[in-house]
Amino acid sequence: MEAVVVKVSGGLVHPPRLEYLTRLRNVLWGLGEAGYSVAVVVGGGGLARSYIDVLRRAGVGEALLDEMGIESSRLNASLISKLLYPRSFPYPLASLREVIEAHMSGLIPVSGGFQPGQSTNAVAAVVAEALGASMLLNCLNGVEGVYSDEPSRPGARLLRRLTYSQLESIIERVSSQEAGSYTLWDKVALGVARRSGLRIAFFDCRDPANIWRALKGEIGSIVEGG
Amino acid sequence: MEAVVVKVSGGLVHPPRLEYLTRLRNVLWGLGEAGYSVAVVVGGGGLARSYIDVLRRAGVGEALLDEMGIESSRLNASLISKLLYPRSFPYPLASLREVIEAHMSGLIPVSGGFQPGQSTNAVAAVVAEALGASMLLNCLNGVEGVYSDEPSRPGARLLRRLTYSQLESIIERVSSQEAGSYTLWDKVALGVARRSGLRIAFFDCRDPANIWRALKGEIGSIVEGG
Amino acid sequence: MEAVVVKVSGGLVHPPRLEYLTRLRNVLWGLGEAGYSVAVVVGGGGLARSYIDVLRRAGVGEALLDEMGIESSRLNASLISKLLYPRSFPYPLASLREVIEAHMSGLIPVSGGFQPGQSTNAVAAVVAEALGASMLLNCLNGVEGVYSDEPSRPGARLLRRLTYSQLESIIERVSSQEAGSYTLWDKVALGVARRSGLRIAFFDCRDPANIWRALKGEIGSIVEGG
Amino acid sequence: MEAVVVKVSGGLVHPPRLEYLTRLRNVLWGLGEAGYSVAVVVGGGGLARSYIDVLRRAGVGEALLDEMGIESSRLNASLISKLLYPRSFPYPLASLREVIEAHMSGLIPVSGGFQPGQSTNAVAAVVAEALGASMLLNCLNGVEGVYSDEPSRPGARLLRRLTYSQLESIIERVSSQEAGSYTLWDKVALGVARRSGLRIAFFDCRDPANIWRALKGEIGSIVEGG
Amino acid sequence: MEAVVVKVSGGLVHPPRLEYLTRLRNVLWGLGEAGYSVAVVVGGGGLARSYIDVLRRAGVGEALLDEMGIESSRLNASLISKLLYPRSFPYPLASLREVIEAHMSGLIPVSGGFQPGQSTNAVAAVVAEALGASMLLNCLNGVEGVYSDEPSRPGARLLRRLTYSQLESIIERVSSQEAGSYTLWDKVALGVARRSGLRIAFFDCRDPANIWRALKGEIGSIVEGG
Amino acid sequence: MEAVVVKVSGGLVHPPRLEYLTRLRNVLWGLGEAGYSVAVVVGGGGLARSYIDVLRRAGVGEALLDEMGIESSRLNASLISKLLYPRSFPYPLASLREVIEAHMSGLIPVSGGFQPGQSTNAVAAVVAEALGASMLLNCLNGVEGVYSDEPSRPGARLLRRLTYSQLESIIERVSSQEAGSYTLWDKVALGVARRSGLRIAFFDCRDPANIWRALKGEIGSIVEGG
Ligand SMILES: Nc1ncnc2c1ncn2[C@@H]1O[C@H](COP(=O)(O)OP(=O)(O)OP(=O)(O)O)[C@@H](O)[C@H]1O
Ligand SMILES: Nc1ncnc2c1ncn2[C@@H]1O[C@H](COP(=O)(O)OP(=O)(O)OP(=O)(O)O)[C@@H](O)[C@H]1O
Ligand SMILES: Nc1ncnc2c1ncn2[C@@H]1O[C@H](COP(=O)(O)OP(=O)(O)OP(=O)(O)O)[C@@H](O)[C@H]1O
Ligand SMILES: Nc1ncnc2c1ncn2[C@@H]1O[C@H](COP(=O)(O)OP(=O)(O)OP(=O)(O)O)[C@@H](O)[C@H]1O
Ligand SMILES: Nc1ncnc2c1ncn2[C@@H]1O[C@H](COP(=O)(O)OP(=O)(O)OP(=O)(O)O)[C@@H](O)[C@H]1O
Ligand SMILES: [Co+2]
Ligand SMILES: [Co+2]
Ligand SMILES: [Co+2]
Ligand SMILES: [Co+2]
Ligand SMILES: [Co+2]
Ligand SMILES: [Co+2]
Ligand SMILES: [Mg+2]
Ligand SMILES: [Mg+2]
Repeated sequence: MEAVVVKVSGGLVHPPRLEYLTRLRNVLWGLGEAGYSVAVVVGGGGLARSYIDVLRRAGVGEALLDEMGIESSRLNASLISKLLYPRSFPYPLASLREVIEAHMSGLIPVSGGFQPGQSTNAVAAVVAEALGASMLLNCLNGVEGVYSDEPSRPGARLLRRLTYSQLESIIERVSSQEAGSYTLWDKVALGVARRSGLRIAFFDCRDPANIWRALKGEIGSIVEGG
Repeated sequence: MEAVVVKVSGGLVHPPRLEYLTRLRNVLWGLGEAGYSVAVVVGGGGLARSYIDVLRRAGVGEALLDEMGIESSRLNASLISKLLYPRSFPYPLASLREVIEAHMSGLIPVSGGFQPGQSTNAVAAVVAEALGASMLLNCLNGVEGVYSDEPSRPGARLLRRLTYSQLESIIERVSSQEAGSYTLWDKVALGVARRSGLRIAFFDCRDPANIWRALKGEIGSIVEGG
Repeated sequence: MEAVVVKVSGGLVHPPRLEYLTRLRNVLWGLGEAGYSVAVVVGGGGLARSYIDVLRRAGVGEALLDEMGIESSRLNASLISKLLYPRSFPYPLASLREVIEAHMSGLIPVSGGFQPGQSTNAVAAVVAEALGASMLLNCLNGVEGVYSDEPSRPGARLLRRLTYSQLESIIERVSSQEAGSYTLWDKVALGVARRSGLRIAFFDCRDPANIWRALKGEIGSIVEGG
Repeated sequence: MEAVVVKVSGGLVHPPRLEYLTRLRNVLWGLGEAGYSVAVVVGGGGLARSYIDVLRRAGVGEALLDEMGIESSRLNASLISKLLYPRSFPYPLASLREVIEAHMSGLIPVSGGFQPGQSTNAVAAVVAEALGASMLLNCLNGVEGVYSDEPSRPGARLLRRLTYSQLESIIERVSSQEAGSYTLWDKVALGVARRSGLRIAFFDCRDPANIWRALKGEIGSIVEGG
Repeated sequence: MEAVVVKVSGGLVHPPRLEYLTRLRNVLWGLGEAGYSVAVVVGGGGLARSYIDVLRRAGVGEALLDEMGIESSRLNASLISKLLYPRSFPYPLASLREVIEAHMSGLIPVSGGFQPGQSTNAVAAVVAEALGASMLLNCLNGVEGVYSDEPSRPGARLLRRLTYSQLESIIERVSSQEAGSYTLWDKVALGVARRSGLRIAFFDCRDPANIWRALKGEIGSIVEGG
Repeated sequence: MEAVVVKVSGGLVHPPRLEYLTRLRNVLWGLGEAGYSVAVVVGGGGLARSYIDVLRRAGVGEALLDEMGIESSRLNASLISKLLYPRSFPYPLASLREVIEAHMSGLIPVSGGFQPGQSTNAVAAVVAEALGASMLLNCLNGVEGVYSDEPSRPGARLLRRLTYSQLESIIERVSSQEAGSYTLWDKVALGVARRSGLRIAFFDCRDPANIWRALKGEIGSIVEGG
């Protein structure tokens, strides 16, 4: 059974919108009906950022801010897990071990972050690797895919196909390692993708039907090879 | 050592505001310095309500909505626990057992909800009972105390002292048992308070210094006896 | 698959009787064979009461007495779980999360209480709600159903059909909230039943075959509506 | 700080008697006040035996019967843990790891059994070994110490001092390995005692003050050496 | 479905050899394909011994040395669990409860030791008992079966069939109860086997195909009866 | 109280050597006596590599290989935790949460890896950040510090002081992201160090007294700033 991992940006889940979420459910359940074995990883998005920002300014250290972000992503994951019940266990999963267990039971594992020092993108990559997924579908919130630079910058243009090295040089230019900062993808996640040759799609998921289009390679960016 | 339990309304925590939270920290740490053994229970507030509402309209059952509310209150509790670190363990506690363990180590236990069918008010009452607290301080978000009716209703007036039975008849008139609905207090919490003779203060906590005033009985409503 | 929840009074389990328990097993396995998805919640009964009474008189507080009651109900649940093995996991389950997990695996979840401040009746109601059960079967120990008053009182008579409100006014007259006290049903459980429209049967279960009769509405009391 | 382990026979705890238990509490707290670091292990006694017997006759296998016995001993341990609160954590501990953790926090660890295939006597021996206890005090229910044979047999006489080998040959003659059977001590426990040179006292504990007497060697049997 | 338990000597796993382990995997998967429900218990072997020896000489007590041995056996079990994935959950299991859970899901449970005072042989016996296994296959590292004495001693000869009592008198002559010491089998394990009438095969497993031969009784020693 | 984190190379622990380990214990206990609050993170070293290599060649995926490495590092951590008992809890800790809990109890937390995709170096950095450590002491096995290139290469020379960026460009040239590969340090760990401004010492620890020398900056390499 072909496995795919869907990473859902936190911004698509919080604040929660009924109409969007029921459409997302239809697509994710639909993937299962079409024979895919699905796993979902959810980001912390704005919810994480608001809690992290206040704590940082109150003097709390970065490792605990990471924990705050993980717990926020887990709340978003909880929402999705209950939405997908009974095809998902209705609670967010907290480790690779639990994700594998749910996958082996034929359910859709839904998780947020796992441990400090690691983004939800890295979690998605590790999950994809563990399940032998053919593709990691990165659902973005209003971004069409990977741009040559921070999308809002003049001159930034969408790249339809990239190698791991090309993605690496982009994220080196753009990224920051503070807990909760805006990033498309990060180096741990990239390292995991590279060592196992994962194919990663990045695409705008404000329309959940785009998940199908991205799976077929019709939209967004594909990263693989090199 | 005299124990007090502080129930913090979710609305005071989410969305998080730096200035408010650092003042709240000062008061809670100050209670400890003044010789009180403090425990904190945090509500889910608007964060819980937004996640619950969407899931309810998506057809998810009430028991899972309760779980969603519990997980939301736990995220708020996590924020407070990290704020109070290192006088609190920097993670939210998930059962009475964990709360007792932290209390026995001389830390400030911080928790949200425990199990479906039970509000964070009931959790606060059970915690107060378990720690033998002299008072349960109910920090409200913009409500001065217990009113004779839903505060927004014409004719509702603030009651400075009430018996358990008077509180009971008020909540019977006003309450609803749907997950995440607005309630001042509920029957489980009331039953626990009554069986152990807990003294409960209700007061507006938009100024955290009010916690001290409520402790001295200067403001808000006090429920006990009868 | 139609789900039913069977709440077994602790008095039916402790002290344990071989002949009774094997007949109970036959009925519970039989429900599964007839196509029902069953969940079982077991009360603490006299075992709980004897441990609670001694601790209360030794000065232990009510919240810990609730915990003692929960642990006792869990021992009774353990007995039933092992009796029902391998159609049940042979250990008592300790949270709604574990109950849902077992149910999703096609097993009969067996649990006792979950958290202080909540009776095993409330647990049964929450479980029924979580599994979308069509009926909550309340197996009593020597009581025919809901009476208009404490059954031993002169003039108390059996009610065959009641609304939630009627049940509420009866339990208001009869109940007490002390840990381990004798009660037919309680307000938390009632609130949960009402918010989800659960149908509850109360009946004497000294003959386990009565479970079938109650399911068909032939004996005992049915509470629903209003 | 000198550590001692007190193994309390299940028969002394179930059915629970107020007067006995408060006296036992006084002695155990008193040991702490006298400078001993105490750990308690509680047996399953008659409670365990009644649940095990019914399940065995219902066809349940020996490993699960052991689990039933462990859970029963844990209920008895729970009673003692709540009785000793706040000098004990008010919950029974389920592994050596938890026992060591409580001991390191300066609390009295209270546990029942740990795992199938191992009696609560073996648990007491392992705990004594882990805490470097100077003595393992075996509180019996109406038996004065180690007899040369099953005490009810004619000719059986009390032995005041024995070697491990003498104890071994007695238990070889008397013991059975069925879950829940009546035994003074067993070979695993003996092996543990021997490898670490633990001193074990056996004495009648129907008067809790005997714990002090046994500690001084005034009553009962002492096993050590050889 | 007929269940068999395979106890794998730690010496067969550590240091790990690719060729051996892939052949072992083929046999274990093959048993499943042939209709057996398999469970695996792995010993600690030389890995355990090296860690235990150093700690003992550094003055660490026997109970913690047992824990060290358990953790070592669990590392060996982890290797086997990952090797057998996805027919095994890819993590070592830490209690009978987890083993039963995996077995009930149709997977091959793989575990090491459980608790101090108990060898991995005893774990294998308890697991065999819990799963109602028809046979416990004891895979030895370079020993043909049970000898009349320590195999290296002159005059020691292989016994093809033995009773429990014969095995008992052999291990009494040979065994030691120190953590990590070399023993063929121990008394707890023997007691468990006897109470449930388990059939135990002992055989040299340097060729994994011997598992099949032992199952048919063609090689090694069989212990049962008496 | 000043906190320091000591990362111990797996190669220093496995195979275990009595004389080395008792000297290491003296130094680590000595740090505590000198007023430092110590935390220890232990690597997997050759033990991890041997188990990983065999599994990789048997076709097991990288995420599970990471888990194998984590479990191996945890076994090494277990050895150290037992060695340091009772100043350490005698079990390896498995998450940042557990590490913080032990640190708050005044004990020396000892852990191995936490989650796949993250090395024990990254764990050490996260722990240092969480405890507000003034220094991360990286105990290497036979390497004097950070070299300008893979130490065995001709022309590689020891660097006494480096910035984060200099370290980054060195590890970019040398590193590989395969589970269990030989690396001095990695990018996640570096990112964590940089965001919190951690000072990292690298030095040869074949003589444990070097820990004191490195703390004073007398030997090895120091990374900080830039
Ligand atoms: N080169 C780039 N191409 C595309 N997006 C980029 C690039 N550089 C930075 N970004 C930023 O990465 C983010 C990707 O959006 P995404 O929906 O994952 O949001 P997010 O806030 O990171 O969500 P989550 O926290 O849930 O992962 C956007 O904020 C986008 O501006
Ligand atoms: N008689 C009454 N007196 C006072 N408040 C009442 C009364 N009846 C209803 N309420 C409502 O109870 C709520 C009490 O406020 P509170 O700050 O606890 O908010 P909350 O949203 O319930 O928070 P949380 O979910 O965190 O507990 C208010 O919404 C108030 O209008
Ligand atoms: N109006 C009433 N109708 C029926 N039973 C009532 C009523 N009022 C009180 N009761 C009491 O409720 C109890 C119901 O019996 P049940 O078998 O549930 O016993 P229990 O001891 O509460 O068991 P458990 O603790 O396991 O729930 C009886 O003791 C009965 O006398
Ligand atoms: N040689 C012996 N000397 C003393 N007691 C013996 C001997 N042989 C058998 N026994 C039995 O061992 C038991 C010791 O009593 P104890 O109070 O430990 O009861 P128990 O039921 O085993 O309790 P628990 O299950 O809690 O350990 C008694 O039943 C006693 O008859
Ligand atoms: N530029 C460099 N400077 C120093 N060491 C380097 C460098 N590049 C690679 N290395 C390698 O990094 C390793 C550092 O040694 P260390 O003692 O941490 O061993 P390890 O096997 O990584 O241990 P563990 O798995 O426990 O972390 C050595 O194998 C060394 O050859
Ligand atoms: Co798969
Ligand atoms: Co207190
Ligand atoms: Co269902
Ligand atoms: Co000690
Ligand atoms: Co089976
Ligand atoms: Co600190
Ligand atoms: Mg409220
Ligand atoms: Mg009842």
